[in-house]
Amino acid sequence: MRTVDLITKKRDGGELTENEINSLIGGYTDGSIPDYQMSAMAMAIFFRGMTPTERANLTMAMVHSGETIDLSEISGIKVDKHSTGGVGDTTTLVLAPLVASIGVPVAKMSGRGLGHTGGTIDKLESVPGFHVEIDNETFIELVNRNGLAVIGQSDNLTPADKKLYGLRDVTGTVNSIPLIASSIMSKKIASGADAIVLDVKTGDGAFMKEMAEAEDLASCMVDIGNRVGRRTVAVLSDMSQPLGNAIGNALEVKEAIDTLRGVGPQDLTELCLTLGSHMAVLAGVASSKEEARALLEQSIADGSALEKFKTFLAAQGGDASVVDEPERLPTAKFRFEVPSKEAGFVATIAAENMGLAAMLLGAGRATKESKIDLAVGIVLHKKIGDSVRIGESLATIHANNEAIQDVLVKIYESIRIQQQMVAPPPLVVGEVK
Amino acid sequence: MRTVDLITKKRDGGELTENEINSLIGGYTDGSIPDYQMSAMAMAIFFRGMTPTERANLTMAMVHSGETIDLSEISGIKVDKHSTGGVGDTTTLVLAPLVASIGVPVAKMSGRGLGHTGGTIDKLESVPGFHVEIDNETFIELVNRNGLAVIGQSDNLTPADKKLYGLRDVTGTVNSIPLIASSIMSKKIASGADAIVLDVKTGDGAFMKEMAEAEDLASCMVDIGNRVGRRTVAVLSDMSQPLGNAIGNALEVKEAIDTLRGVGPQDLTELCLTLGSHMAVLAGVASSKEEARALLEQSIADGSALEKFKTFLAAQGGDASVVDEPERLPTAKFRFEVPSKEAGFVATIAAENMGLAAMLLGAGRATKESKIDLAVGIVLHKKIGDSVRIGESLATIHANNEAIQDVLVKIYESIRIQQQMVAPPPLVVGEVK
Repeated sequence: MRTVDLITKKRDGGELTENEINSLIGGYTDGSIPDYQMSAMAMAIFFRGMTPTERANLTMAMVHSGETIDLSEISGIKVDKHSTGGVGDTTTLVLAPLVASIGVPVAKMSGRGLGHTGGTIDKLESVPGFHVEIDNETFIELVNRNGLAVIGQSDNLTPADKKLYGLRDVTGTVNSIPLIASSIMSKKIASGADAIVLDVKTGDGAFMKEMAEAEDLASCMVDIGNRVGRRTVAVLSDMSQPLGNAIGNALEVKEAIDTLRGVGPQDLTELCLTLGSHMAVLAGVASSKEEARALLEQSIADGSALEKFKTFLAAQGGDASVVDEPERLPTAKFRFEVPSKEAGFVATIAAENMGLAAMLLGAGRATKESKIDLAVGIVLHKKIGDSVRIGESLATIHANNEAIQDVLVKIYESIRIQQQMVAPPPLVVGEVK
Repeated sequence: MRTVDLITKKRDGGELTENEINSLIGGYTDGSIPDYQMSAMAMAIFFRGMTPTERANLTMAMVHSGETIDLSEISGIKVDKHSTGGVGDTTTLVLAPLVASIGVPVAKMSGRGLGHTGGTIDKLESVPGFHVEIDNETFIELVNRNGLAVIGQSDNLTPADKKLYGLRDVTGTVNSIPLIASSIMSKKIASGADAIVLDVKTGDGAFMKEMAEAEDLASCMVDIGNRVGRRTVAVLSDMSQPLGNAIGNALEVKEAIDTLRGVGPQDLTELCLTLGSHMAVLAGVASSKEEARALLEQSIADGSALEKFKTFLAAQGGDASVVDEPERLPTAKFRFEVPSKEAGFVATIAAENMGLAAMLLGAGRATKESKIDLAVGIVLHKKIGDSVRIGESLATIHANNEAIQDVLVKIYESIRIQQQMVAPPPLVVGEVK
């Protein structure tokens, strides 16, 4: 079959068969189909979309383009979680020990990634000694023993997706829901997940800024998961302001510890309980969301969740004493307050712009080669709906450098204060299963 | 400006500015914009179309991507003609000497091209000694002296179009009217035309098989021409059966000679008079189509058109005696008749399939490297509407090989005969100016 005929078929609204999709993805991975044909195909998909069958076939073709992780030696149903970007998102750090503490096996493969702050691995590396360079055997043994381990992402996972994502980035074809959905789902499935909980963000700081788009993406991913035999649930959550208060690597680890201890920010705690409940139900350790939530709350209250975090850190070489003495985490040289210039109520906190402020401090990576400063970041003291007095601190900047003028400007720019009272936005705005 | 932003703009229905189009075509020509971005852009254009301003700017950007021919030393208004493909299309061979004989200067740049039969240059090379390897100075001098000369196409004419056409061919983006229109118009304009007459074919043997598409293409090209200061007229003509009777190189030269002598096929004669009238009016040698037509008919009747053809052939090294003794043209070794298997009326002659039959004989090129057999081809004896008796010849095959079984099958397959009478299809079906 000629690639140009496949492109023309999709261009004219036809449905590609499983065989055609396999040949397309196989050829693209091995280089026999050139970028210029794949980019034309991606643009045709942008305009024509893909049928549910096509999306499932595309996902599995990408899964099979490289290595797949076999987690069958881990007993229990392996439930993975994925959040679609966002700013100051500490959910994985909290959720992994939290659900593990009630018996959900967590075999987490994670990346470093680009963004406003580092990936989950970068954040965990704030803990002295902690590392993810463990072999597969150790990884599986640790999950079986402790219920939780984190390993770095294999380089050969879904190579078709890596290659296609790079191409989409420069050809105006990123923003296609079937392509986004199959990209995310292929990585989760290749990583060995039996079931998947998705946290799809919507609002200013999210990839999908519009609710309708976020719903489409969520439905599309849930449908793919269910078609390929992975039970999948999606939660739509608000990212119209940063989640939690901390934006930065060590700062988010500290916030995760607070949350596991039961004294974390209300929004982060609530989202973790919601996502964790779905994970527990899919894993079969609770028969309803209500039962699951009670187990999770109990685990926080009695210290089991925090204990699980310590065990996990220690098992991978980390200094678990940071949990009780968070001052042992990397700490920035300088702290600067950001006093409010007016009195009133916080109306908006532009999440993406706040993320950029954290990047200016050095908390994130602009390119793969950038080095992350684990200590720096921003801690918000006010969220949407809070009242503020003149001179009261809106946030604390943690910096390793006194030249923070640009950061200050970005923070002031991001936080809008008004006279009228404002209701805080609802956090969990929908659910798809 | 980043190319991905231009692609996204077009993808979302925006209008590219002149500056943006120049940067796109300039970058693509010099290689700084890769194929994979251009193919995504072409697919976005396929779906979004282009505004009239964009199409004109794209055309001129392609004109300026390479050499442009300066015909200013030729006095008079240089009118070029272009036919959009078709089968057995002998119009250029007839029109060039015909309009030159009434004073329209014809400075024709022509190609060899791929197709069922050769390009105009291949056909003319059936005349012993005739060649197009003349320098620009000689070319211009010949047009000024004789009113007519033909030169081979410069390799450096519209390189952006050549590169883009090759890419479109393998990325499912050939069939986009703004891209087709700007491709054709850019070549005509770069070749130095002051005014352009377009012969847009419609029907089975044409590139645009549907009338509505052919009309869109014609309007689009006329609009481009008029926007960039080249008066342009398009005639829509029927290609539901081959034009004229001959399909083959030397066979078409002979048919052109017959037509210039006034004894050619009725449809070919009529189309040449129609197109030639428009050319004469645009060139300013007649004030109305009616006046122009009378001049052209007079030129055929008094032998001036035929005389002009002889002068032209001789000026470029050709043996003009072929005009009076066409048996001196390359002649195939074998002739086979194609007797009708039934009696009735010719209902359809699948033009494209007849073209493929001629290709099987060796009359056309499948790839740039193929060698053309100038002598072979097919001469039809029946056209749509004609009555046929059993055993009466439908066509004569001119072959250099006795293995013509496949050709016979294709010809029988192409000609459908029915009992009821059939009206011949109208030849000129529309006009756009």
